[in-house]
Amino acid sequence: MAKEQTLDNLWLAQTLFDLGGVQFGNFTVSESAVSSPVFVNPKVLISNPTALRVASKLMQQEINLAQSLRRARAHPFAVVAGVPVGGLLLATAFSLETNIPMIYARVRPEGTGKRGIEGRFNVGDAALIIDDLITRGSSVLETAELLEENSLKVKDVIVLVDREHGATERLRRRQLSA
Amino acid sequence: MAKEQTLDNLWLAQTLFDLGGVQFGNFTVSESAVSSPVFVNPKVLISNPTALRVASKLMQQEINLAQSLRRARAHPFAVVAGVPVGGLLLATAFSLETNIPMIYARVRPEGTGKRGIEGRFNVGDAALIIDDLITRGSSVLETAELLEENSLKVKDVIVLVDREHGATERLRRRQLSA
Repeated sequence: MAKEQTLDNLWLAQTLFDLGGVQFGNFTVSESAVSSPVFVNPKVLISNPTALRVASKLMQQEINLAQSLRRARAHPFAVVAGVPVGGLLLATAFSLETNIPMIYARVRPEGTGKRGIEGRFNVGDAALIIDDLITRGSSVLETAELLEENSLKVKDVIVLVDREHGATERLRRRQLSA
Repeated sequence: MAKEQTLDNLWLAQTLFDLGGVQFGNFTVSESAVSSPVFVNPKVLISNPTALRVASKLMQQEINLAQSLRRARAHPFAVVAGVPVGGLLLATAFSLETNIPMIYARVRPEGTGKRGIEGRFNVGDAALIIDDLITRGSSVLETAELLEENSLKVKDVIVLVDREHGATERLRRRQLSA
């Protein structure tokens, strides 16, 4: 089981690379203007539906594992919340595979859209936030805030690629486990 | 076959209604400021993953049918292009079911994003545009333009709900079949 997962992880990393989702150079990354020698774009996974499915399965395995530990590191959840746009793609795959309903938070809606939650939920429902890539964690934090404003509970966040620019620590300070 | 599809259509309409995706009142709809007594929001389908899957299957059936006619009403395509955000949810389901790669056009990207195409494609690839809801067709036309600027061919568009506010005619004038 653990070995299989490692193989899947490697396969996914290789596929992401083959799709051009990993580039080397000097990049300024996202909102934080952190400069980096590697640019990772998990969104290219949509070009290989099997890879998108594998990515969502790996996330499921991680969550199942984290929930099954004697001192569980992840909480039960009623809905998954994809962070637009990249996280939504993975969350949709996750939701279709697991049959768990999805919602999403429109933090900065385009055009005539209203700030708010898309999809149905009950007051007090626990939401698992799903994103594809995390750098400093700002989008995830904004999403968590909006979900909480709407009476959802947010305890856990899962992301496919952590750029390790301090996101985990920032989330932890807000009592979120990633 | 035809009867089954009708049943699925009815089931989907009923499910959309049950999810609160159909509302009656006096609404001003989207960019066009068309006023309407019915408000339809197919995005709530994400709250019922089975319904999202059925919606994408109905779209597949429509396309297969349109392609199989002696005078085919739909062209072959190499990729599906979801219109963010609503169309992306359906396009992801469609892509996962059919194993056809997905792309999407970022017409008005948020934050630091660049206008352009996400996902891989080859010059001259035919793209099928998928959207959840069409009113006057502006988002679809903008998407088609950006895809064509990037050397993709766009001939066909499929939408789950046509509000019948002139979109089909506007698309036809641009040689797009919907």
